[in-house]
Amino acid sequence: MNQLEYIARQFSRAQKKAYEHYVVTRIWHQLDDTEIKFVTQQYVKRPEGIALTDIYFPQLRVHVEIDEGHHFGKDGKRVINDKVREADIISATGHIIQNIVVAGKSLNEVNEQVSNIVEYLKAAKLQNNDFKPWNFEAEQNPLTYIQRGYIDLQDDVAFRTMVNAANCFGNNYKPNAIWRGGARHPDPNKIIWFPKLYENSEWNNSVSDDDQVIIEVCKDSNKRITHIDKSKEKAELKRVVFARVISPLGDVMYRFKGEYKLDLVETSYDKGVVFKRIGTRVQTYPTKK
Amino acid sequence: MNQLEYIARQFSRAQKKAYEHYVVTRIWHQLDDTEIKFVTQQYVKRPEGIALTDIYFPQLRVHVEIDEGHHFGKDGKRVINDKVREADIISATGHIIQNIVVAGKSLNEVNEQVSNIVEYLKAAKLQNNDFKPWNFEAEQNPLTYIQRGYIDLQDDVAFRTMVNAANCFGNNYKPNAIWRGGARHPDPNKIIWFPKLYENSEWNNSVSDDDQVIIEVCKDSNKRITHIDKSKEKAELKRVVFARVISPLGDVMYRFKGEYKLDLVETSYDKGVVFKRIGTRVQTYPTKK
Repeated sequence: MNQLEYIARQFSRAQKKAYEHYVVTRIWHQLDDTEIKFVTQQYVKRPEGIALTDIYFPQLRVHVEIDEGHHFGKDGKRVINDKVREADIISATGHIIQNIVVAGKSLNEVNEQVSNIVEYLKAAKLQNNDFKPWNFEAEQNPLTYIQRGYIDLQDDVAFRTMVNAANCFGNNYKPNAIWRGGARHPDPNKIIWFPKLYENSEWNNSVSDDDQVIIEVCKDSNKRITHIDKSKEKAELKRVVFARVISPLGDVMYRFKGEYKLDLVETSYDKGVVFKRIGTRVQTYPTKK
Repeated sequence: MNQLEYIARQFSRAQKKAYEHYVVTRIWHQLDDTEIKFVTQQYVKRPEGIALTDIYFPQLRVHVEIDEGHHFGKDGKRVINDKVREADIISATGHIIQNIVVAGKSLNEVNEQVSNIVEYLKAAKLQNNDFKPWNFEAEQNPLTYIQRGYIDLQDDVAFRTMVNAANCFGNNYKPNAIWRGGARHPDPNKIIWFPKLYENSEWNNSVSDDDQVIIEVCKDSNKRITHIDKSKEKAELKRVVFARVISPLGDVMYRFKGEYKLDLVETSYDKGVVFKRIGTRVQTYPTKK
């Protein structure tokens, strides 16, 4: 996949929603800036529940919603189903939501709203002192983050392979390497962890809406207590978390979520193993020779 | 349907062809001129057969083809099937075909090609002394053509109802009027005709690739000879033709094809009734009080 294919595939997703589609394509073509990344139909967590936004600009932390507003399920309930569960659901804390109203509007009225959003996005880019241009190839390359010296939650990092994520931390895994559990970290008190943050065959995991808390529960009742006890023994082990998610385009990705540590107070046989986020930026390490 | 819906629906059609889609939306949004009409996936007749062009600008008579070129069927044969047969197939004589290559190109290379096409289209509009701005509502209104004084083939006229077409010629038919055969024309030597220019249950009609010749053959063998004889008796009757077609968006439309007259030399029991085009512009008439 190259940048063109990525964009073209993003555009193709809103097929049945002709108006959204018109607006999404117009925003991007009028913005006319290949340094600005976008995602269509991004799942986001909000206090009201999980929602889909029509177009999201990760570097600017701006979402644009078209017409129907929040896309919530009936009665404002959480849209939780099997498809959503594995999705790349991001925390929208501190994000800006812009709206475009299409219903009942003329072509020129819609175009004018798009122009305003485009001006807003251009200004947001200029005002963002930490703006990093979208580089489609580089964003998957561990070297990018090794040279930068860190991975930050703000930088919207999601790798297509566990190996690429692990290799940001001194590792030199081969592309087809597979390992169970976490990957090595140069700091012996840390591990790189690739959890599924939703219920799956082995684990009944969950993550809070603000991504601050991960709860891990072993579904095998014979191992459940042992797992909790063993986890508590390793309570000092910090976890650099790349959660396994399904991207909006349907690919598996490993999204950086921050650094977490077991919370001894909250962890219990009743609740499971509770991890709390202790940092949103982690140091990267050059590859060991 | 309004202009916005028309455009949004046009965009939604190239869904499965993500690259075409990217290019089509980029051309239109960067052209950024609501006076310029476009049609996606327009069927055109060419010497080589019937083809589909990716985006067509009727006022400028310019087509843009993306990547694969002519979209011909296997072996360059005509793409004639039931779906195409009823389609709005236009004669592309004298039209300009521009190409955009996407395969193997980067995002910036594709964008640059689009910029060139956009500049070309802008220039084509400026150089067109007869340019009539796209007015989505007015183009369906008989009054537009009555005030203009004529309907010309160059003006890309296709009505959604037979009544609207007929009412450009002095008639005052009600919106739900239905009549068999042609509609009245103020000139007693003329009739307004709405034929299907393809084989259907009653007629085995056809039209030449350049739209110059229409051949009408009655499929009922008992009526075939009588129909030809009777047609020849009315050989002086000129026919203002609006052919029944299915538009790219799937709606029935009546496309203006010009004025035709029976050709006594060519018409025969063997061949059927042959009409030849005698004009591409017809006079319109104010509504009779």
